[in-house]
Amino acid sequence: MADYPAFRFDWQRKVRTGIPETVMCEGKTDDQIVEIIEHAQERGARLFLSRLDSARAEKVEIKGLDYCPLSRTAIMGGIADLRPDDASVALVCAGTSDLPVVEEARRTFQFHGCEVPVFADVGVAGLWRVMSVAEELSRYRVLIAVAGMEGALFSVLAGLVPGVVIAVPSPVGYGVSKDGAAALSAALSCCAPGVVTVNIGNGYGAAVAAMKMLNSASAGQGD
Amino acid sequence: MADYPAFRFDWQRKVRTGIPETVMCEGKTDDQIVEIIEHAQERGARLFLSRLDSARAEKVEIKGLDYCPLSRTAIMGGIADLRPDDASVALVCAGTSDLPVVEEARRTFQFHGCEVPVFADVGVAGLWRVMSVAEELSRYRVLIAVAGMEGALFSVLAGLVPGVVIAVPSPVGYGVSKDGAAALSAALSCCAPGVVTVNIGNGYGAAVAAMKMLNSASAGQGD
Amino acid sequence: MADYPAFRFDWQRKVRTGIPETVMCEGKTDDQIVEIIEHAQERGARLFLSRLDSARAEKVEIKGLDYCPLSRTAIMGGIADLRPDDASVALVCAGTSDLPVVEEARRTFQFHGCEVPVFADVGVAGLWRVMSVAEELSRYRVLIAVAGMEGALFSVLAGLVPGVVIAVPSPVGYGVSKDGAAALSAALSCCAPGVVTVNIGNGYGAAVAAMKMLNSASAGQGD
Amino acid sequence: MADYPAFRFDWQRKVRTGIPETVMCEGKTDDQIVEIIEHAQERGARLFLSRLDSARAEKVEIKGLDYCPLSRTAIMGGIADLRPDDASVALVCAGTSDLPVVEEARRTFQFHGCEVPVFADVGVAGLWRVMSVAEELSRYRVLIAVAGMEGALFSVLAGLVPGVVIAVPSPVGYGVSKDGAAALSAALSCCAPGVVTVNIGNGYGAAVAAMKMLNSASAGQGD
Amino acid sequence: MADYPAFRFDWQRKVRTGIPETVMCEGKTDDQIVEIIEHAQERGARLFLSRLDSARAEKVEIKGLDYCPLSRTAIMGGIADLRPDDASVALVCAGTSDLPVVEEARRTFQFHGCEVPVFADVGVAGLWRVMSVAEELSRYRVLIAVAGMEGALFSVLAGLVPGVVIAVPSPVGYGVSKDGAAALSAALSCCAPGVVTVNIGNGYGAAVAAMKMLNSASAGQGD
Amino acid sequence: MADYPAFRFDWQRKVRTGIPETVMCEGKTDDQIVEIIEHAQERGARLFLSRLDSARAEKVEIKGLDYCPLSRTAIMGGIADLRPDDASVALVCAGTSDLPVVEEARRTFQFHGCEVPVFADVGVAGLWRVMSVAEELSRYRVLIAVAGMEGALFSVLAGLVPGVVIAVPSPVGYGVSKDGAAALSAALSCCAPGVVTVNIGNGYGAAVAAMKMLNSASAGQGD
Amino acid sequence: MADYPAFRFDWQRKVRTGIPETVMCEGKTDDQIVEIIEHAQERGARLFLSRLDSARAEKVEIKGLDYCPLSRTAIMGGIADLRPDDASVALVCAGTSDLPVVEEARRTFQFHGCEVPVFADVGVAGLWRVMSVAEELSRYRVLIAVAGMEGALFSVLAGLVPGVVIAVPSPVGYGVSKDGAAALSAALSCCAPGVVTVNIGNGYGAAVAAMKMLNSASAGQGD
Amino acid sequence: MADYPAFRFDWQRKVRTGIPETVMCEGKTDDQIVEIIEHAQERGARLFLSRLDSARAEKVEIKGLDYCPLSRTAIMGGIADLRPDDASVALVCAGTSDLPVVEEARRTFQFHGCEVPVFADVGVAGLWRVMSVAEELSRYRVLIAVAGMEGALFSVLAGLVPGVVIAVPSPVGYGVSKDGAAALSAALSCCAPGVVTVNIGNGYGAAVAAMKMLNSASAGQGD
Repeated sequence: MADYPAFRFDWQRKVRTGIPETVMCEGKTDDQIVEIIEHAQERGARLFLSRLDSARAEKVEIKGLDYCPLSRTAIMGGIADLRPDDASVALVCAGTSDLPVVEEARRTFQFHGCEVPVFADVGVAGLWRVMSVAEELSRYRVLIAVAGMEGALFSVLAGLVPGVVIAVPSPVGYGVSKDGAAALSAALSCCAPGVVTVNIGNGYGAAVAAMKMLNSASAGQGD
Repeated sequence: MADYPAFRFDWQRKVRTGIPETVMCEGKTDDQIVEIIEHAQERGARLFLSRLDSARAEKVEIKGLDYCPLSRTAIMGGIADLRPDDASVALVCAGTSDLPVVEEARRTFQFHGCEVPVFADVGVAGLWRVMSVAEELSRYRVLIAVAGMEGALFSVLAGLVPGVVIAVPSPVGYGVSKDGAAALSAALSCCAPGVVTVNIGNGYGAAVAAMKMLNSASAGQGD
Repeated sequence: MADYPAFRFDWQRKVRTGIPETVMCEGKTDDQIVEIIEHAQERGARLFLSRLDSARAEKVEIKGLDYCPLSRTAIMGGIADLRPDDASVALVCAGTSDLPVVEEARRTFQFHGCEVPVFADVGVAGLWRVMSVAEELSRYRVLIAVAGMEGALFSVLAGLVPGVVIAVPSPVGYGVSKDGAAALSAALSCCAPGVVTVNIGNGYGAAVAAMKMLNSASAGQGD
Repeated sequence: MADYPAFRFDWQRKVRTGIPETVMCEGKTDDQIVEIIEHAQERGARLFLSRLDSARAEKVEIKGLDYCPLSRTAIMGGIADLRPDDASVALVCAGTSDLPVVEEARRTFQFHGCEVPVFADVGVAGLWRVMSVAEELSRYRVLIAVAGMEGALFSVLAGLVPGVVIAVPSPVGYGVSKDGAAALSAALSCCAPGVVTVNIGNGYGAAVAAMKMLNSASAGQGD
Repeated sequence: MADYPAFRFDWQRKVRTGIPETVMCEGKTDDQIVEIIEHAQERGARLFLSRLDSARAEKVEIKGLDYCPLSRTAIMGGIADLRPDDASVALVCAGTSDLPVVEEARRTFQFHGCEVPVFADVGVAGLWRVMSVAEELSRYRVLIAVAGMEGALFSVLAGLVPGVVIAVPSPVGYGVSKDGAAALSAALSCCAPGVVTVNIGNGYGAAVAAMKMLNSASAGQGD
Repeated sequence: MADYPAFRFDWQRKVRTGIPETVMCEGKTDDQIVEIIEHAQERGARLFLSRLDSARAEKVEIKGLDYCPLSRTAIMGGIADLRPDDASVALVCAGTSDLPVVEEARRTFQFHGCEVPVFADVGVAGLWRVMSVAEELSRYRVLIAVAGMEGALFSVLAGLVPGVVIAVPSPVGYGVSKDGAAALSAALSCCAPGVVTVNIGNGYGAAVAAMKMLNSASAGQGD
Repeated sequence: MADYPAFRFDWQRKVRTGIPETVMCEGKTDDQIVEIIEHAQERGARLFLSRLDSARAEKVEIKGLDYCPLSRTAIMGGIADLRPDDASVALVCAGTSDLPVVEEARRTFQFHGCEVPVFADVGVAGLWRVMSVAEELSRYRVLIAVAGMEGALFSVLAGLVPGVVIAVPSPVGYGVSKDGAAALSAALSCCAPGVVTVNIGNGYGAAVAAMKMLNSASAGQGD
Repeated sequence: MADYPAFRFDWQRKVRTGIPETVMCEGKTDDQIVEIIEHAQERGARLFLSRLDSARAEKVEIKGLDYCPLSRTAIMGGIADLRPDDASVALVCAGTSDLPVVEEARRTFQFHGCEVPVFADVGVAGLWRVMSVAEELSRYRVLIAVAGMEGALFSVLAGLVPGVVIAVPSPVGYGVSKDGAAALSAALSCCAPGVVTVNIGNGYGAAVAAMKMLNSASAGQGD
């Protein structure tokens, strides 16, 4: 209907900030998503799509994209040469229900060529679970912690390990913790310093921030 | 000014519910508080007053009451024959700033003849602090836990000990945790079951609930 | 898709806290739930599942679980030898619409071998309803009270009986009381002390807290 | 400083709606209040001023007004010929701390020549208090009920008496009930119908609404 | 599944408060609603059901009830002998989208034998609409005003007419006025006194309050 | 069912305020919308309908209206003689997902005979996008800016151009920015003055305000 | 203490956006304000300061600034040659308590050489007040309307006049309208289109937006 | 009054997490703060105190601490050997009013031996300010950005530079941005990825997180 271009892809973003633009599919029509994919294919570019409901997966799969229903992400251009883990970053989550957010982060790392380990279901209700991996977690420079409900995992982790903790509140819970509200408050109020936060469910943003922390660090060392 | 009685003291409450009525001073004028005190003195009754600002302490001290500025409570009729602790209930708090709430609870127990131990400043930022007392805390039937900020202590405690945890969110924090809002959400959202909650800063209510749990239990055994 | 374990079951929780871990199904995929069931069946363990929508009931029923649509719970391992009521705990609710929450609590007790009486539809709009059972309710050590709307039942009960009242706000209402918000505020603000609260709709948590209160009491008596 | 008139008094309001305009002093400067008083005195009009802090009382007392510190109201033009109560309206409140709001309503009635009875401190924590006056309260056509905290009084009253209940949430409480928020939710969510609500602390508005209900009724009977 | 009675109908409520109990269907199962209907039919009682979604209408229609989809109400026992309007109460609404709430109120009046006039779509965006009926509206003792969006109608009406205005915020709007939130705030904050409020969308409650105002008035005159 | 008119169309509004009444379809039944259309067709009037879900489009299309699914608007009476753009107003949006709101505004302009240019997808994450059109945007007297998420575009625009910025928060985002809440706060809090705001998603209102700004201006010049 | 410059004055802002930068004093120390004043005096620039509490007025008065306590503004460089009103913009407010916000706007106009008329105390509780000036208000291109409480004035005005209405919610009210919250919701939810809004109490921003509307219009005419 | 230790200093925290415990003074009594200082002095430890109001500064100054009123921090044990900046981290803020938060962060760095550059007053209302330092800011690995109001600076920065942006919402603003609420929402909703957030006003936490990012990086390089 419209006679103006619906998008201006920010191809320069990778040069400028180190991270290429991603397509967040929520709020976009099927036609707009397909148009962006074709635009990228013409340029021979790789592409990462997030928040794409499984009901719409077929639309991107016929274009040859790799779709993951748990994380609701699609990758265009393949995943290859995953670098093995070098103790730089790990994913940790409180419960099984947090895995969609964990997987959004893990897929983001995979798109950028990095395989990141996951420590799932280590919520503080059974403190031995996080304690049993605490020493191992202490080796990582950055921990991305995903938790819903009351989000106590963020503070417990930050008090145990030297790495930075990126807290990702997860939309898991009901009543006052519905949609991740209580976990977000917990993340921002941590009694242990060294915790930073991203928006509820923003596994993608957490992964990008972690890569920036590590990339900058490497770059910085070279100066 | 008014020509009607300003209060109807519920002297029967102790018979009915096991706990006598308390005078919450916030919102009452100095004259009203003094009138209630004199009314109780005429009956020879003991009395517990809460939320009485230190600026008004003189008003009750000249009536012979024992005033505590940290907890903002006053006791009329003396504290005597404090029973030693029998591992029934303990007070636990995350930080030094939570002590006003802890003390409101402790004074409530003292008014009812019971000395209750306090485990202060065991917040989860230094997890060793709560771990070092975990075995001892496991002996208590009821734990009253006071915490502000993100309130992670509630979940950690509930995952470690068999006793009931009464969570008291404390009005300690700033930004999203200002006035205890985040800690209240945490208390209600605990991933570990067995946690019950009272209103923010309600040390008095937590102590009464604990006494009811233990009194009923005793009474029940006698049936 | 993931190549890491999605859950770490906390089998030690019963030893540590007296209550075994429960499976909250909201947010878990069908595959994850089935995997947990099979894991438990291999251990010969009994299991309690909560918040399992009736659309997914078939998935657990073919595994031999007992599913209850009103409470959205499933029990694996059977219910046997229900102990008769000994005046320790009763369930009370304000209206018929609160029954899903009441039943979640009652099923939790049944899983633990205890049959608990229910006093339904005794909301304060018809005060005679709660007054007519007040004397009987006074015999119980713990009352689990479920109410939505304005939640006035919590305060009225707490002023009438000596037992502890565990208030469970129910997601019943509309406008300002939608999703249980007003009832939660009422539970936390009760003018009558001796009321403790759990999250909105958390019948399971209320039942566990009640069992802890009574178990600890018994255990305590034996010291 | 301004060279335009700061107010346009609505002298016609009484003719139009049956109730004259009132001066709410919050937000007005001392000079503006004095100017309005002088303007009314020139017309020989009577005047009701609300929400006038006691620190500013002297400003109106030197103009001959009758100031009441508890209700923070001032009356210009005297109170005379108070009609005795004819069972049309009564004031009821849950606790002593609600009296400032009760008195704002009572002073409004007095300004309009009517003495209204007060039933103070009948909160539901001691249900016998409201039950002992229930029969008497049943005789009134309109009950203005003032309560803070969880506001359970509104529902209990509405379930007991045939009259309309005007609920006035009172800014009494702390934590989730701070500033009357929980009581307002309760008033709007009453499980018993026949309750209408005004803004938190609006004793004046409740009194005006009650007078309108009764005036219209009388007027109506005459048709 | 449950072996206890799911409801205790408050048949005495009419004697006590003048208004019989109503069945709010939201949150009740189909079986529970049918059981209540049969229970009432056995007593030969009339019944009013509210908030019954049209998808469930068939369940009550086969029992002979009169169902209205716009108001989502059902009436059992017929509507007969509707008294003509005697200028006691009128329904007013701001827009066409408010009619479901208006009709819930009108059906409530019809159940009680009274036909009430409706002045629809008189929102203040076209002020002439309310002005053109202002004189007629001034004749009514009680005006039930329904409005969503910003709810300006409440204040405008209250400044124009002598009758009491019962404001019913309507769940019409989007953004900040979504679900009636802004209209509720407006109703409670009216700059014109004489406005009382009920919960968002509570047409039933407004009608009951109006009947109580008028019934009490009549009854009162007879004393 | 109702025997009263469901709407009073404000045909005089154009004379009075310069803008004719629009039909907001949300909350209206299909029958009511058709009735309004027929009423307008009888008068030979043109009509603009907003917030009409595509599932209901058929209802208006059979009446000959032009329906646009992206903006959910329908136009009755045709669009003709679109005036070319004269640098008076432009539409700007941060991302592709904001286009439904942009199109609601653009269709409003088209209904009034004006074609307005759109600058889409110029969000500040790639600042070069808005910088590259800044000089062009500086030529417009009024800019309607649509943005969701954190709404930073509003402030950046207002600091760059001399025209008025009408900020339209868009319901694009998740977590704390869900439904446009964060963007609304940003619009109201702009550090750069000269920004005014309308409700979330209110493209129609923004277009009307812009036309009023320009119409008044023209009219004013003629005085 | 700091060894870096505390401010970077945006002297180019007038060239870029038509309006020079203003100094908002809230949150700045006395020293910082004085430093900015001296910096401007060195350049020979005029300056407008807002939100400067009267307790700090002396600090700026000794520098020769003209301070106004009601609006809490200070003007440096004098006010001269005020242009007479040409029916372009008028200030309207609902009550006397809104005058501080009105005056902040009026002083902003004065700083820019324009005297703007004020129509005070025309709130809708006495609708005749706004009706009696409606014809006169219809002559203005832009109306800045200031109102607290329920903010009904915004909608009533917008339905009566052809000019744009800039709604400024005023922090006047209590309970749900405390700090202007209800008035802000009303402004954003206006049922009459053509209303735009600024932040609560932002008289300065409203004045700047009005000037931009009129300046652009003039500029535009010249193209 | 209490006979139990009020604090348990977490001396091991530095070993465990790399950062020693800090004393947050808000909520602690003067006596408690002095007791902690003396306890640290006995150990010969250095100490950092935050949120210490200037009215209480004298209490710590007589103990020999270095107090800074703007940041409300005190340092015990001196600041020495500040390392020059090596392009690892910079502080950026939107306005002069944000400097208290900036200084809390800068003092934290100083306590740890590091001098960090400040780029003050570069808010986006004058975009040239941030653009003129963009190239310089691109050299830093971590940017701590402090902004109140609408917080647009966070997104603009993140779109311009490769470093991680730690957003610190500042309690600067009024109306909807009061106390930093709008800026916090903006920080969490940034359309540009690579932004992480801490609680409102938490300059200390941002500094600690930055040091952890850089320390871990260095440590990591050594592996």
